[in-house]
Amino acid sequence: MNLILLQPEEISADNRVVLKGRRFEHITLVHKAKVGETLCVGRVDGMIGDGKVLAIDSESIELYVDLHIESPPPLPITVLLALPRPKMLKRILINLISMGVKRIILINSYRVEKSFWLSPVIQPAGLAELITLGLEQGKDTLWPQIELKKRFKPFVEDELADIADGTRCLVAHPYRAEPAPANCTEPLTLAIGPEGGFIPYEIEKLVEVGFSSVHLGQRILRVEAAVPALIGRLMDLSG
Amino acid sequence: MNLILLQPEEISADNRVVLKGRRFEHITLVHKAKVGETLCVGRVDGMIGDGKVLAIDSESIELYVDLHIESPPPLPITVLLALPRPKMLKRILINLISMGVKRIILINSYRVEKSFWLSPVIQPAGLAELITLGLEQGKDTLWPQIELKKRFKPFVEDELADIADGTRCLVAHPYRAEPAPANCTEPLTLAIGPEGGFIPYEIEKLVEVGFSSVHLGQRILRVEAAVPALIGRLMDLSG
Repeated sequence: MNLILLQPEEISADNRVVLKGRRFEHITLVHKAKVGETLCVGRVDGMIGDGKVLAIDSESIELYVDLHIESPPPLPITVLLALPRPKMLKRILINLISMGVKRIILINSYRVEKSFWLSPVIQPAGLAELITLGLEQGKDTLWPQIELKKRFKPFVEDELADIADGTRCLVAHPYRAEPAPANCTEPLTLAIGPEGGFIPYEIEKLVEVGFSSVHLGQRILRVEAAVPALIGRLMDLSG
Repeated sequence: MNLILLQPEEISADNRVVLKGRRFEHITLVHKAKVGETLCVGRVDGMIGDGKVLAIDSESIELYVDLHIESPPPLPITVLLALPRPKMLKRILINLISMGVKRIILINSYRVEKSFWLSPVIQPAGLAELITLGLEQGKDTLWPQIELKKRFKPFVEDELADIADGTRCLVAHPYRAEPAPANCTEPLTLAIGPEGGFIPYEIEKLVEVGFSSVHLGQRILRVEAAVPALIGRLMDLSG
């Protein structure tokens, strides 16, 4: 937790906040914060700043918050990700969000197991928890948008052209592909397949709406490695 | 398992191999291979090719192997990694190896918990298992070298200059750093700190032997995301 994320309604008119539960435990057990010390805090969709510890008791901590720093700029990329298995999805989403990705669309694919769509992880509460962890990790406050598209064909045929409009569209695919470019200067739409990859029909459909295949060499990476490797390469994260 | 990794001594003079245990189970349960079908196989430190299924019984599978493809070229990078917690180490090592890193040095740092050095994961058998999984994932056969350096100062002062000789030396560090370059053309030595980062003393010691600090932007990434993001950015994986 590199930043304590606060909901706007938690902050009182005189800039105080009282935290219990997970954040209280993290601040007292991991940060081991004492009265008078300052922590990094941020308001969801708002500014970042300092939270000075005013008081600690056995179940809560009170902070005085002074928010004066802009959150980091969103990464200009939309990621389409074939829904991974729930355990892996958790890690991948936290990593994507910590890197500054603000629009993530979880899509179906032939090689996505149907049961993955039943996971509690992709229910609103499950996603909100992962978003919180990702923003806390990345010291960011801007809440990302995560969408679920359970049908590949209608999504690609009816919705994707609008989503991808004005962006460079890339799909990570090891065959008949160009090497992934570095430091793209334009906004991107990046599609990443499931373990085992998109099937040829899916690649064809993506190509029809303007996607080009890019690869990261002849080695095959797990999705959890491919995602940060692609984003670290394609984007200028320091921008 | 994108490649079935075979030990040289498992392959008979007439190019046959009989597999039991983990590989047998994976081939029959995941690949669902039948007699006459062909799988991707490779010999440790040797060539890659086809393994044609000759026979399957309840506990073993026999393959005829025809090895005729060179393994992918090693990535010209040495990675120094502050020892992560065992669960994370497993994933990070598999990812590093699947990306083609052939020399990994696990080092100590102030923020590495002492107990991590007691983990069975870093015993020879534990590392061999992770190396196997990483090579099988990356469709590679060249066995990487993993070294353990439990004392930071003597390692950096007495050994690191020789290891880093002739390479560009970078340490991932968010402060007083340049943006991480893309597509470095020279061999690299890359140091990656623990969760929470190297302490200033450690950065100073690395700078003394020629390391420069590079960052991936103002967001703070988990080590498991930072590692592939850095390697995907710094290296030309398609080379």
